[in-house]
Amino acid sequence: MALAGKLLMGQQAIQGCRDMIYAINPASNERLEPGYAGGDQTHVEHACALAWEAFDAYRETSLEQRACFLEAIAEHIEAIGDVLIERAMAESGLPEARLQGERGRTCGQLRLFAQTVRAGEWLDVRIDPALPDRSPMPRADLRQRHIALGPVVVFGASNFPLAFSVAGGDTASALAAGCPVIVKAHSAHPGTSELVGRAIQAAVKQCRLPEGVFSLMFGSGREVGQALVTDPRIKAVGFTGSRRGGEALLKAAQARPEPIPVYAEMSAVNPVFPLPDALSSNATALGQAFIGSLNMGAGQFCTNPGLVVALKGADLDAFVASAAQAVQASGTQTMLTPGICEAYESGVSALIHHERATRIAQGQRSDWPNQCQTALFMASAEDFLADASLQHEVFGATSLIVACDDATQLQQVAEHLEGQLTATLLMTDEDLGSARALLPTLERKAGRILVNGWPTGVEVCDAMVHGGPFPATSDARTTSVGTAAIKRFLRPVCYQDLPDALLPEALKTENPLGLNRLVSGQRESVSG
Amino acid sequence: MALAGKLLMGQQAIQGCRDMIYAINPASNERLEPGYAGGDQTHVEHACALAWEAFDAYRETSLEQRACFLEAIAEHIEAIGDVLIERAMAESGLPEARLQGERGRTCGQLRLFAQTVRAGEWLDVRIDPALPDRSPMPRADLRQRHIALGPVVVFGASNFPLAFSVAGGDTASALAAGCPVIVKAHSAHPGTSELVGRAIQAAVKQCRLPEGVFSLMFGSGREVGQALVTDPRIKAVGFTGSRRGGEALLKAAQARPEPIPVYAEMSAVNPVFPLPDALSSNATALGQAFIGSLNMGAGQFCTNPGLVVALKGADLDAFVASAAQAVQASGTQTMLTPGICEAYESGVSALIHHERATRIAQGQRSDWPNQCQTALFMASAEDFLADASLQHEVFGATSLIVACDDATQLQQVAEHLEGQLTATLLMTDEDLGSARALLPTLERKAGRILVNGWPTGVEVCDAMVHGGPFPATSDARTTSVGTAAIKRFLRPVCYQDLPDALLPEALKTENPLGLNRLVSGQRESVSG
Repeated sequence: MALAGKLLMGQQAIQGCRDMIYAINPASNERLEPGYAGGDQTHVEHACALAWEAFDAYRETSLEQRACFLEAIAEHIEAIGDVLIERAMAESGLPEARLQGERGRTCGQLRLFAQTVRAGEWLDVRIDPALPDRSPMPRADLRQRHIALGPVVVFGASNFPLAFSVAGGDTASALAAGCPVIVKAHSAHPGTSELVGRAIQAAVKQCRLPEGVFSLMFGSGREVGQALVTDPRIKAVGFTGSRRGGEALLKAAQARPEPIPVYAEMSAVNPVFPLPDALSSNATALGQAFIGSLNMGAGQFCTNPGLVVALKGADLDAFVASAAQAVQASGTQTMLTPGICEAYESGVSALIHHERATRIAQGQRSDWPNQCQTALFMASAEDFLADASLQHEVFGATSLIVACDDATQLQQVAEHLEGQLTATLLMTDEDLGSARALLPTLERKAGRILVNGWPTGVEVCDAMVHGGPFPATSDARTTSVGTAAIKRFLRPVCYQDLPDALLPEALKTENPLGLNRLVSGQRESVSG
Repeated sequence: MALAGKLLMGQQAIQGCRDMIYAINPASNERLEPGYAGGDQTHVEHACALAWEAFDAYRETSLEQRACFLEAIAEHIEAIGDVLIERAMAESGLPEARLQGERGRTCGQLRLFAQTVRAGEWLDVRIDPALPDRSPMPRADLRQRHIALGPVVVFGASNFPLAFSVAGGDTASALAAGCPVIVKAHSAHPGTSELVGRAIQAAVKQCRLPEGVFSLMFGSGREVGQALVTDPRIKAVGFTGSRRGGEALLKAAQARPEPIPVYAEMSAVNPVFPLPDALSSNATALGQAFIGSLNMGAGQFCTNPGLVVALKGADLDAFVASAAQAVQASGTQTMLTPGICEAYESGVSALIHHERATRIAQGQRSDWPNQCQTALFMASAEDFLADASLQHEVFGATSLIVACDDATQLQQVAEHLEGQLTATLLMTDEDLGSARALLPTLERKAGRILVNGWPTGVEVCDAMVHGGPFPATSDARTTSVGTAAIKRFLRPVCYQDLPDALLPEALKTENPLGLNRLVSGQRESVSG
C-alpha cells in the first residue's frame, strides 16, 4: 500500500493545504516521504460536520454491530502486515520486537473493547419500576442507561505510535462508547497514522457505518488542534503528551461556551519506594532491575520510574552503587524525535548543573543521532522538599534518587509529591508496617500502586488504572487504559414512563439484550 | 433547641467575625433572629485542616460504619421535630406540607445512600488475577476499587432548604463516598442550616468519627466560598443555584494549580412537547395540568416547565386558552427571598417588553410582600430561533409557549435548545412516529426524558438522572439526585501484586465483604 500523504475525511482522502509535514527517521535524521500537507479550519469544519452527521446513527448501532466494527479494525490493522512495523520503526526509532508487541496490544485492545461492548455493563442499566399504589405519592417508571457523549477528538501520542495513537486506547474506547472519532495524528509518525487510519476507514466501509465515524487530520502548529477542540460539535478530547500541551487543550476546552471534558495524560515521575528490609536483603538486584525498567524504550514510557525514595544508609548505598554500575553499562538508544532528544539533553543538563542534585552516573555515549544517554542523579530529601523543579519529569531514561533521614522525612517526601500515574513499593514481609503507613498517601497520589514490580508495562484489562491526580492526568476520575476507559465518553440519561415501543432496547422490560441490570435495587438474574 | 448563630467547625461552635447574616421571612419581610456572623479565611483554613485530618480515616471506615452514620444523621434530623419545619417555613415562605415532604425526602435519601454504601457496587471492584504462565509475558495480579476524592465543599441551595442544602443530596452522596464535607450554608436559611448542621454534628459524635468529617460555614459575599473552592485540600465542589454562581465557581476551580471537579446544577427551562394527537385529544386538560406543574413551589423548582413547544393550530389554541384560564385563576405564592422575587419580576417585565414575546396571561396579584404572580408568554418559532435570550431561565412561575409552523421547524427548535435537566413528551400512541423523530435530539439535550408527566418532582432512586448537558449542569456525565450521585466523588485506584495483608478488604481474594465483583471479566457469584 503506497502512502498518499492525505487527510482522511470520512471515506475520502483529501489533499491538505498547509505546510508539509515530513516524518524524520530519528536513527538517521533522514526525511521520510511522502509529505503530509496539513489541514486548515475548512478541513476541521468538514470532519466535524461528518462526525456530527454520523453521531445519532452510530451511537444507536447494536452492541453486536459495534463490537464487529472494533474487531474489523483489528483485522484490517493486522492485514497491513510488515509494512506497518517497518514504517513505524522508521518513524519512531523503536525496535521491531517492541512495535510488534505494540501492534499485538493495539489489536488485543480493540478486541477486548469488542467484548466489553457486547457484555453491555457499561450501559449501567438501572430500572425502578412504577409504584402506582405508593403513598403519599405514586412513583413513575424510571429507567437509566448511558449514551455516548458525542464526537471525540483524539490526539495521537509520540511514544506509542500504535497503542496510543490513531487506533489506540482513546480511539478504541470512544468508538466502543458510540462516539465518532476525529484523530489529530502526531506529526512524528504520519505514515504509520495513515496506514492505521486507512485500516479504520476500510472497517467503516466493511461494516456499512456512516462515513463520519472516523476521520484523520494532519497539521503542524496549533491551528488544527485548536479548531477541533473548540468546534461546538466536539464533546470530549483524549490526549497523551506533555503537560504544557495538555494544559493548553484543557484551557481551550474550558473556555468554550459549552465546556467539555479533556482527558489528558500528561506528566509523572512514578516514584519507587524501596523499603528498608527489601533494600537490606536485595539491594544489588533491585538496583540492576531499576535501571532495566528505566531504560525500557529509552525511558520514553509514561510510567518510567523517574524517582526513587529511600532511607539513607549502607543498604541504599549498595542499591545506588549497583544502579550506577548498570547505568554505566547502558548503551544508548534512539529517541522518538530530534525534539524529544533535545528536550531530554537539556533536562539532563539542567540536573547536572542543579545545585541540589548530584550526578551519580551516566551511560555510554554514541555519535549516532538522537541517542538517549541514561543518567542517574541523587538529592537529599531536604533539597527535594525545598525545590519543586526536582520533581518535574524529564522525558527519557533519567531518574533521581532521594535519600531520606528517617521514616518521617520519607513520609514528608511522599506527601510532597504531585499526582502520579503509579507508585511502587519494593518490600518484604518485614516491611509490611512501613508499607501500611505509606499506603494511604500513595492512594491519594497515584492511580496504580505496585508491589515488587516496575511501573513500565501497562496491562490492558478490566482492573487497570492508567490515570491519577493532576498533573498525571487532567481528570483523576478515569483511566485511559483498560476497559473502564469507556466510561469517559458516556453520560447517563433517565427515561420516565416511556412506552415500551419508545424505549431503547437496553431498557425494555423483557431485557431483550440479556443485560446485567439493576432492577428495584437488585441485580436482575440473566438467563444464560 | 435555641439557635446559637455560630459556625460549626468540627464538634465546635465558633463565633464568626464578618458581617451579620439574618434570615428574612419573605412572607412578612421580617428579620429573623439570631444573626450569623460570617466566617473569614481563618475559619476556612481551620475547617479545611479538620477535613483533611479526617479524610484518610473516614474514607476507610467500614461500609457498615458509614451506612450507620448516614442513618444516624436522618434520625437526628427527625429528632429536631417541628422546630425544623417551623424555622424552614419562616425562612423560605414554603408551606408546611411541602417542607414536611422535603424532610421526608431528605431523610429517605440519607437512608437510601446507607443502603447503597452497604451494597458496595459503587466500589466497582474489578479483579484480573495473575497469569504467571501467560506468554509472551506473564500478567501481574491487578485489582481495582474506587476511593473517595477528598474533602468536598457543598453550597446549599435556596430552593430546597432541606433536600439540596446542609444534609441534602450533595452532602449525602459525598459522605457516602467517604469524603468529609464542608457546607457553605445558603444565607437565606441560616437557622434551618444550623439545626440540620447540629444534627450532623451529633451523628458524627455518636458514631465516633473524626470531627472534621463535617463543618458548616456561613458567609455573605464571596470570601468564604472562594476561599473554600481554592483551598488545596478541597477536591470537589457541589453546587445548586444560578448559572452565574455556578460558572464563577467553575472558573475558580479550574484556575487552581490542581483543578478540581465542580458539580454545578445551574439553569434549565425544561421544554415540554405536546405532540399533535395528544393536543388534539386532550388540549384543555393538558393546559390546566401544565399550569399546575408551573405553579408548584411558586415555580421555584429546577425542573419547572419554562418552555412549551408545539405545532400551531386550533389544538394549540385550545391548549393556550386553557392554560391562560388556569394562569388567570392562579393565586400568588410567597417566593423564597426578596432578591429572588425581584429577579423574577424583572425577568417577567423583560418578557412583557420583549418585542418577540407576547403576554398571554398573568395570574392574580397581591399586596403581600415577595409574591410570585404567574405569567405566560408566547412566541413564534422563528422569533425563538432568532433570539437566544428567549430561552434563558426566569426563576419562578413563568413559561413561554413556542408555536411552530411544522414538524421540521419544531425539530429545529429542539436542536436549538441549550442543555436541559428534562425534556417532556405529551403523546398518544398516534404520536409514536413524532416522538421517535424527536427522541435522539432530546437525548442529546437532556438528562431525563418524560412521557405524559410533568418534570417537577424528582424521585430519589437508582435510575434517576438530575443532570444534563451544559448549562443545565457543569458536568453532563453525572447526576446530583439518586444513588448514582455517589460516583461524582470517587476515583479508581489499581493495586498490582499487593500481598493480601496489604490489600483493602474489598479486594481481598476471599471477598470478605461479599461484594458483587468483576473477576476475570465475569461477575463473581456471591453467596447469600
